Amino acid sequence: MKPFVDIYDTTLRDGAQGEGLAYTVEDKLKIVRCLDQFGIAYIEGGWPGANPKDIEFFERAKSLTLDHAKLTAFGSTRRANGIAAEDSVVQGLLAAETPVITIFGKSWDFHVDVALKTTREENLRMIADTVSHLKAYGRRVFYDAEHFFDGFRENSEYALDTLRVAHQAGAETIILCDTNGGSLPEQIVESIALVRSRIPDAKLGIHCHNDAELAVANSLAAVAAGVTQVQGVINGYGERCGNANLSSIIPTLELKMGRRCLPDGNLRMITHTSRYINEVANLVPNDRAAYVGRSAFAHKGGIHVSAIAKAKETYEHIDPNTVGNETRVLISDQSGVSNIRFKADGLGGDFAENPEAARLLLARMKSLEHEGYQFEDAEASFQLLALDALGKRRKLFEVIEYHIWLGSSGEPEAVVRLKVGEDEVHTASLGVGPAHALDQALRKALLPHYPEIAKFHLIDFKVRILDGENATAAKTRVHVETSNGEKSWNTVGVGENIIAATWQAIIESIEYGLQVNGIKRDYEINEK
Amino acid sequence: MKPFVDIYDTTLRDGAQGEGLAYTVEDKLKIVRCLDQFGIAYIEGGWPGANPKDIEFFERAKSLTLDHAKLTAFGSTRRANGIAAEDSVVQGLLAAETPVITIFGKSWDFHVDVALKTTREENLRMIADTVSHLKAYGRRVFYDAEHFFDGFRENSEYALDTLRVAHQAGAETIILCDTNGGSLPEQIVESIALVRSRIPDAKLGIHCHNDAELAVANSLAAVAAGVTQVQGVINGYGERCGNANLSSIIPTLELKMGRRCLPDGNLRMITHTSRYINEVANLVPNDRAAYVGRSAFAHKGGIHVSAIAKAKETYEHIDPNTVGNETRVLISDQSGVSNIRFKADGLGGDFAENPEAARLLLARMKSLEHEGYQFEDAEASFQLLALDALGKRRKLFEVIEYHIWLGSSGEPEAVVRLKVGEDEVHTASLGVGPAHALDQALRKALLPHYPEIAKFHLIDFKVRILDGENATAAKTRVHVETSNGEKSWNTVGVGENIIAATWQAIIESIEYGLQVNGIKRDYEINEK
Repeated sequence: MKPFVDIYDTTLRDGAQGEGLAYTVEDKLKIVRCLDQFGIAYIEGGWPGANPKDIEFFERAKSLTLDHAKLTAFGSTRRANGIAAEDSVVQGLLAAETPVITIFGKSWDFHVDVALKTTREENLRMIADTVSHLKAYGRRVFYDAEHFFDGFRENSEYALDTLRVAHQAGAETIILCDTNGGSLPEQIVESIALVRSRIPDAKLGIHCHNDAELAVANSLAAVAAGVTQVQGVINGYGERCGNANLSSIIPTLELKMGRRCLPDGNLRMITHTSRYINEVANLVPNDRAAYVGRSAFAHKGGIHVSAIAKAKETYEHIDPNTVGNETRVLISDQSGVSNIRFKADGLGGDFAENPEAARLLLARMKSLEHEGYQFEDAEASFQLLALDALGKRRKLFEVIEYHIWLGSSGEPEAVVRLKVGEDEVHTASLGVGPAHALDQALRKALLPHYPEIAKFHLIDFKVRILDGENATAAKTRVHVETSNGEKSWNTVGVGENIIAATWQAIIESIEYGLQVNGIKRDYEINEK
Repeated sequence: MKPFVDIYDTTLRDGAQGEGLAYTVEDKLKIVRCLDQFGIAYIEGGWPGANPKDIEFFERAKSLTLDHAKLTAFGSTRRANGIAAEDSVVQGLLAAETPVITIFGKSWDFHVDVALKTTREENLRMIADTVSHLKAYGRRVFYDAEHFFDGFRENSEYALDTLRVAHQAGAETIILCDTNGGSLPEQIVESIALVRSRIPDAKLGIHCHNDAELAVANSLAAVAAGVTQVQGVINGYGERCGNANLSSIIPTLELKMGRRCLPDGNLRMITHTSRYINEVANLVPNDRAAYVGRSAFAHKGGIHVSAIAKAKETYEHIDPNTVGNETRVLISDQSGVSNIRFKADGLGGDFAENPEAARLLLARMKSLEHEGYQFEDAEASFQLLALDALGKRRKLFEVIEYHIWLGSSGEPEAVVRLKVGEDEVHTASLGVGPAHALDQALRKALLPHYPEIAKFHLIDFKVRILDGENATAAKTRVHVETSNGEKSWNTVGVGENIIAATWQAIIESIEYGLQVNGIKRDYEINEK
């Protein structure tokens, strides 16, 4: 049986201190449910009393039933020269009614002097009093030793004293924090070795920040050095450069370091978990994220693509299925004909018979990329180009003209005029925004001829300004994702204004949906 | 004198294999000039002959004069059972006329069997022949041992043989590559120790990928283990999860590990270098990047802000000036009144006298954030709110109405009607896109009353769809950056359509520019 490492997620507290993050109470509850399903051991819910949102969260969390996780509340030790029982932070922690409470205190003498402005002896009493008080109420207590590694480098005896009083007062686990994120792995390892020799019966945890891009390495080094709890954040959000990224730590511990962190079989959920939380956090996802990123197993160079067609492990360090991710093949000016064959869904045979069409397609694509198109995230637009190159793209309708009218009052209004077969259709629609009005007018015009359009709906819409230097006069690229309820597909449009770009992406999304049967994904192709 | 580590940047070759990257020849030349000014030792320009772009690049690079860097060309060893002198890749490498050539060969027997499909003996001859041939032409040769660490784990003797033949044939440096990015630091360290004991006089380099989020740690561990060249990419772009991030490696080597990588004083240029390359690459910047990210020294939690006001090293692992970055303070629902005082540029005194206004401002801001506004990146909009809360915001003009008309033919046209003082102004303008037309019409209307507007121009424009699930009917947030030639400022608008959001951001950018004298930045505030 592999040794277990307890994962402690602080997405909702330390993670929420990241720039650009602002969770609603509903968001926080969604994330708790998701982390619990994933199998995280401890979920830090927030700082009860810090703001009205966290108070409401802990109130509502009382009725949650969790399968795997224990919810924890976070707060500081009592104030200097105060009494734990009368301290509002300490009272708030108890009122949250979580099974585990995590409190943080100061290990770095400099912080005691400058930030707390109290004596070093009083700081030790603050730690001991607060831990004992919470223990007296029957709670499990974790003690976060803030700035432990900085404190240890400057005054190791005092830093050790702060741990010792927390341990003696009954803290179940002592978490060593690299709060400023500047430590190197060898410093982490040496400090932990000394802590273990000096306080041999303490259970230890690690809490790292990523200010030198070493939070993952530092956390793993700490596990190798003997800690049994790892704190971090799925996707690594957090103050400044973020917290240790659990999306990278968990797979490495399970797949490469012989440790267990999750219930059996749950590692496959990590890509979904990461993306779901990213969605709730409403941040631009990091496509390059290890294990879980959209590009983590994406191959672009011609040599790589030709090798993975023979054996995927030539350029993949693990099987992407083990983490619920998938292999993708990208098309770009670094592509060779292998990329085209790999990619051109269901058309590989046609291109093998017609190498001239493959060269034509590659050349057309490179020239469109030069104009600002990007097909990596617009497989449906790429398929339409592929059909074009083979002379197989059917013309389903023709746009004669469209117009948009919008302003400070009234809803945007779109007018479209199309030719569908022999008919000319001229219609109009209102919409919430200009793109919405165009989309509505277009469907209205086409629906009588193509009733399956009723099932299509736009599910995502992204705008990228291509040349920030020209500001509002810059080119715009729009990506649109459309679904028919069973499958979804992506298209791209580029134009000198956002409406022209959106129009093109919407037109292609409808055209693709109507003419391509059985939409397949990369991973299905790979399994051929 | 601190020992030197040679930095070898492969932004233009391995970095360009990242998803979403497509450099023009002009981009590549800009990046070479920037990296040279920064003081990088070796710049890998590309793979001559791989595509027309790289051929043109090396042709034009012949006339570049570099101050610090040596340009290198990259390619593979000769084909199996061929002759180096007749091999087109080898000929292309010589034709590029760079002082240094880097070739890669296979160290992993599995790749020799499966990808190359040749014998292991022939692979050794391919390496030896190619190195000797290039040496015979008087070039310095670096040998990249692809998949060295994977090969070493499976067949260490064969992997060592591949290094030995490259070394014996005259390769100046042998670079050990963790091509699939899955190695752990201890594996890197053990393998390097064995290589050094078996081929003691070889100079070694390291080339890591980030598939387990360990590329920085692995590169640093390799330096500690004795390598003297580090390959990587500024900002860590590259195939899959990217290459080792030089923006993190260089500062850690120089500030924390006692090595030198750059000419004296150049470390301060690293933030600019990172952002410039990001701009040329046209990627969404990683704000959380260590050392160089916009958020790397950004403080949000109330406790952190109150501590850094006393001493910045309480929550900063290095002085941001050493890497040319700056401290920032963020405003959010985690803010306390310290954040407001820190942030409200020049108004700190007013808020200290009027705490009711500070509470009012915090409440107003939290409610706007709830609607989708984000002030972290819109300091000018925040300043307008602060003036409002203090009753000091002047009304410079009033919008009566505006309209936009655009379609498949003709330029977008905007009409605006404003009240400025006693006058009603009603005017119109064309523009490249709808936002541009509105911006032009607004300036035209205001210019006679506020001639300083002539100096304002939009320098950046960003669009974020707030709720992808509602697609084109979602809310939109627009950020605009405006400059008056000396200073620049950021504003935000949110609306149910992109035009309404853009209009609001543009209105505020003009209002701020007109009413706030002496625009200050966070780092100026910090120095008070």
